[in-house]
Amino acid sequence: MRPGILIFTLLVSAWAELLSAKVVAPPAGAQSTPAVLSELREKALHDPLAMQVLEGLTSEIGARQVGSENFVRARDWAVKKLQSLGFQNVHTEPFTLTAWTRGEERARIVAPYPQKLAIIGLGGTLPTPAGGVDAEIVLFKKYASLLEAPPGSLTGKIAVVTEPMAPGMAGYAALGKARRLGPAEAAKRGAIAYLVRSLGNGSTRLAHTGFMSQDAATVPAAALSAPDAELLERIADRGTPVRIHLELASSTHPAQSWNTVGEIPGATDETVLMGAHLDSWDVGTGANDDGAGVAIAVAAAKLATETRLRRTVRVVLYGGEEIGVAGPAYAQYNSKNLKKMIIAGESDSGSEPAIEVRLPAGGAQNPALADLSSALSPLAVRSNSEPSREGGPDIEPLNDLGVPGLEVVQRLDSYFHWHHTEDDTLDKVVPAELSQNVATWAVLLRVMADRNVVFERKAVEPAK
Amino acid sequence: MRPGILIFTLLVSAWAELLSAKVVAPPAGAQSTPAVLSELREKALHDPLAMQVLEGLTSEIGARQVGSENFVRARDWAVKKLQSLGFQNVHTEPFTLTAWTRGEERARIVAPYPQKLAIIGLGGTLPTPAGGVDAEIVLFKKYASLLEAPPGSLTGKIAVVTEPMAPGMAGYAALGKARRLGPAEAAKRGAIAYLVRSLGNGSTRLAHTGFMSQDAATVPAAALSAPDAELLERIADRGTPVRIHLELASSTHPAQSWNTVGEIPGATDETVLMGAHLDSWDVGTGANDDGAGVAIAVAAAKLATETRLRRTVRVVLYGGEEIGVAGPAYAQYNSKNLKKMIIAGESDSGSEPAIEVRLPAGGAQNPALADLSSALSPLAVRSNSEPSREGGPDIEPLNDLGVPGLEVVQRLDSYFHWHHTEDDTLDKVVPAELSQNVATWAVLLRVMADRNVVFERKAVEPAK
Repeated sequence: MRPGILIFTLLVSAWAELLSAKVVAPPAGAQSTPAVLSELREKALHDPLAMQVLEGLTSEIGARQVGSENFVRARDWAVKKLQSLGFQNVHTEPFTLTAWTRGEERARIVAPYPQKLAIIGLGGTLPTPAGGVDAEIVLFKKYASLLEAPPGSLTGKIAVVTEPMAPGMAGYAALGKARRLGPAEAAKRGAIAYLVRSLGNGSTRLAHTGFMSQDAATVPAAALSAPDAELLERIADRGTPVRIHLELASSTHPAQSWNTVGEIPGATDETVLMGAHLDSWDVGTGANDDGAGVAIAVAAAKLATETRLRRTVRVVLYGGEEIGVAGPAYAQYNSKNLKKMIIAGESDSGSEPAIEVRLPAGGAQNPALADLSSALSPLAVRSNSEPSREGGPDIEPLNDLGVPGLEVVQRLDSYFHWHHTEDDTLDKVVPAELSQNVATWAVLLRVMADRNVVFERKAVEPAK
Repeated sequence: MRPGILIFTLLVSAWAELLSAKVVAPPAGAQSTPAVLSELREKALHDPLAMQVLEGLTSEIGARQVGSENFVRARDWAVKKLQSLGFQNVHTEPFTLTAWTRGEERARIVAPYPQKLAIIGLGGTLPTPAGGVDAEIVLFKKYASLLEAPPGSLTGKIAVVTEPMAPGMAGYAALGKARRLGPAEAAKRGAIAYLVRSLGNGSTRLAHTGFMSQDAATVPAAALSAPDAELLERIADRGTPVRIHLELASSTHPAQSWNTVGEIPGATDETVLMGAHLDSWDVGTGANDDGAGVAIAVAAAKLATETRLRRTVRVVLYGGEEIGVAGPAYAQYNSKNLKKMIIAGESDSGSEPAIEVRLPAGGAQNPALADLSSALSPLAVRSNSEPSREGGPDIEPLNDLGVPGLEVVQRLDSYFHWHHTEDDTLDKVVPAELSQNVATWAVLLRVMADRNVVFERKAVEPAK
């Protein structure tokens, strides 16, 4: 458990008292009857807004890495989009960061068999010295084997980890350390560079980038495409020393970023937050990660609030999820104003269908939400009675400050084929699947903003 | 019809007389009884040689463009491989060509929405001037629309053709002109560069290269990945002028190449030729195009000739199919010695299963080959009674000199996802499918080399 946080439960009745101070609120639940939810759900399934938003973002902006000019264009695009759709209180909340910019990158096998290698630098990697590094590799077919290597055993070598990722989120979670922490672990053992098989389930020759630890003891690090990792394994299996030439150029600079916020005001001062992240990696056009989430959030919030509700629905388009800076910035910027934030969720798993919803602890057992399951079941979305888990880097800081979390689980059959690659483009999005997500979130936002329901909260000790 | 060629039929009986001069031949057909073919077929289905050959070629050589150092390494590798497998008369047949070498390539949308574009220069393209070209585009959603554009209508513009290719070989054949001839057609109308949607059926952001006409009136030309072609369509549909920056570097040099030949001698001076091409494009590792064919040819020839046969089985590994120079060179080098070449075929359609065999005209109706159909049917390969069509650039020059052609049609469900891209790597090959091709060709080579069967020939007028 983290310092500064302790868990207790505020009684639902105490919240009800707070709410009673508001008198202009419409009758709780009147806009989320089963019939109304059914109509909303069907409308959302056929609404073109999400696909229009996603088409616009990917066509007119494309890649939008935090700290880049294109991200500034994305921010302006998002502000205009929210304003044109009738969102209120549209604004940006600035914060500072260190931006990292990719330069030219290349790798090749020098010996025994000269061949090009398809790689991509990990996000935030150190550059190699000018002209690159040229060294023998030590290849580990399991990440655990690298961790077992003694200090000094990789001195002057390029460490290569070729462990394939198991499918889906479980695989990503299990092997994530090989990307995030592998460079520092290789450095500790004397390596001068690090190559890791892409975290992904595809077989194209487009490698997957992603965030790596900014540990001072790290080394230049890149991901290999899956075919290239397998090629290196086959060559290494022959028993001859393998030498690789690796060049990674990059630079860093102090930069500003912004979370972009828009609201559809409700009748009370309570808020329901739906997030997605506007930034992407510098490859692909961020269609699934997380243009889809942006489109789902904007469209679901718009559809959910076509009639006036008790609570404000706030859309937050985070500006820096990929390097983990936007969620903390949002939580810090708004830390004094979270008591009336009833629930917060984020769509950041691409555009494949939603399959499961998890409410905060106690939510699934709350009689006031007993009908949610039947409202979602026509979408083939089941209600999981287990409570929502902490969100990703955008939502977790809110969870840590007491805000209950709302979680929608999506299918990830293809997501990790494209994730963090040049292949994350609009053609990979199935419009009907995107709409199914919009319908799921529209129903959830409508229920959460219309009904007088509250959830158990973590409460936070005042900072010392 | 081409000058210098006329069709007539040499009587089968006349050939039989020629053959009777040989006395050391084993009894015709003794090594291709139904029981023997069945055993051969089953053995081939479980034989590891083809996959070993392909693994070696892709791992130890990789990309092997004609005119490159790596092609020379591939040639040496092939000579050693044939020798180590017991092929006789292993040799290389040299010829000269103009080699083309790719340099740095990049493209981006300059306006209205700055974005990178994923492209690859077409094989043999002119380079752009240093620093690239920067011009407004004229986008044609159909190649036919470009052809309808009047002279001068593209002056100073970059012509872009975004027509998608229909699936499989029919689609490739139908749209091939957009790649081969499009650059010259655009040039005729005043364009300064040409971009064409990749000839392919995949949706990755890896564009497909391939041969283009070396017409003097051509312009720098590259293929767009499918997602990028669609992106340009969406942006162009907005009606604002679109500007693109395109940089293509490349160089040409006089070079030598070689066809690599090996034989398993038979008891007569008659020959059955099985080809494949050793060269690949400079992207990928040429696993399907045409490493698979090399592996199939070598393994099928080896398996077919494990017992001594009447006729020599000759494997020719062509060195320059991708630019169309190897087949003509082979035919020219051997033009005086083709009368005893009974039949010639090539495997150059990747590694997906064989589905159909076509014999030369009359072959399907020849009682001496009536059992071939049942020998192949356990492989799910059907005998098409239509005659074989002319082979690709390697075999067609032999057909034109009178040599009958043998054709194996393969499934192409995935071939055009990888064809001529970085994605043509070993992991795309299914070993059991490769073996099914080996079994098909082993049966065919055994029958053709074992039986005293001959086919109608085109005969060629002496050169004037």
